Amino acid sequence: MSGMWTVKVVGLGVVALSLSVELLGWLLHRLRPKRTRTEVLFFPSEMACLEHIFAPSSPQSCCCPLPHGVETSFTRLVRCILSASSSLDVCVFAFSNMDLCKAVLTLQCRGVTIRVLCDKDYAAILGSQIGVLRRAGICARCDMGSVYMHHKFAVVDNRLLITGSLNWTMTAVQSNKENVIVTEDPNLSLEIQERSA
Amino acid sequence: MSGMWTVKVVGLGVVALSLSVELLGWLLHRLRPKRTRTEVLFFPSEMACLEHIFAPSSPQSCCCPLPHGVETSFTRLVRCILSASSSLDVCVFAFSNMDLCKAVLTLQCRGVTIRVLCDKDYAAILGSQIGVLRRAGICARCDMGSVYMHHKFAVVDNRLLITGSLNWTMTAVQSNKENVIVTEDPNLSLEIQERSA
Repeated sequence: MSGMWTVKVVGLGVVALSLSVELLGWLLHRLRPKRTRTEVLFFPSEMACLEHIFAPSSPQSCCCPLPHGVETSFTRLVRCILSASSSLDVCVFAFSNMDLCKAVLTLQCRGVTIRVLCDKDYAAILGSQIGVLRRAGICARCDMGSVYMHHKFAVVDNRLLITGSLNWTMTAVQSNKENVIVTEDPNLSLEIQERSA
Repeated sequence: MSGMWTVKVVGLGVVALSLSVELLGWLLHRLRPKRTRTEVLFFPSEMACLEHIFAPSSPQSCCCPLPHGVETSFTRLVRCILSASSSLDVCVFAFSNMDLCKAVLTLQCRGVTIRVLCDKDYAAILGSQIGVLRRAGICARCDMGSVYMHHKFAVVDNRLLITGSLNWTMTAVQSNKENVIVTEDPNLSLEIQERSA
């Protein structure tokens, strides 16, 4: 009888141990803080060729004098924009940067739903890319209010928020001291998108 | 013998259960994702009296025609700044808002270590508060580079990051469409402070 009880107790112990280990694993998996992607990009950015980002399948096909294959703040920014698979919402005071325009046009070719909103005063200035975007069939609108639409953010796939002091201009990218925050924090990306709608 | 074994097994079960509950509680406490404070403030902000924020001990002492005791985006922003207990670092392109200047001066009186950096071009413009801050003995400097120092952020107690499209001007607060992110995400506040130092 005592032998049987020992076997039962040991058996129960093994079952309890294995269940505990399983529970522990599940708890660790469920409760481990999810690491939200967060990054700060600083500008001015070094100038570098973007060919390896726009055409990654044909490396070193570009003969321009800029450094090739270099990662900079600007290449990071372009990569973030190009990561869009379903939607891109851009809400920036000024949009005259041709590389960023090329990124948006690339997404348009991939079937990504794009909306662009700029300030009306800046959209009328020489070099604004709003006309280029419109001619490509992209929904690019101007805020017609009497005050500045001074936001500088974009939301990729309703998930990734890109925001900061940086207007989408060449001067901002190559000259000014600027910062851009890239974050997947769902509170931020959803709130900023909904409330500025 | 069988009775003794039953008592032992039940006893072991009770001990195991209590230990499991304790372990579970500890795990839940340790592994629960810490809720990082994150907020988006939108502007333009309604105009409201700030007396209840600057002088909370003497409510309704102000006779100005603005609404009193109202919470707006701007009162939230001022509260965030006034929450500084040890340091405030401000790095903004333009600083001409007198209420924000008053907030900085209030912190100076409380012994908070303050550093302010603005763009040199804007600092020379009528209405800039840089001179007021300097006369109060605050370390307020101008970026003397040939390009715009276009950042618009502040860090409170090396902990709370306030950043966005908003310059510290009256127009930005009361007229423009702007956003400000307030976050305690340690990655963001430390990185933006160190890398723009």
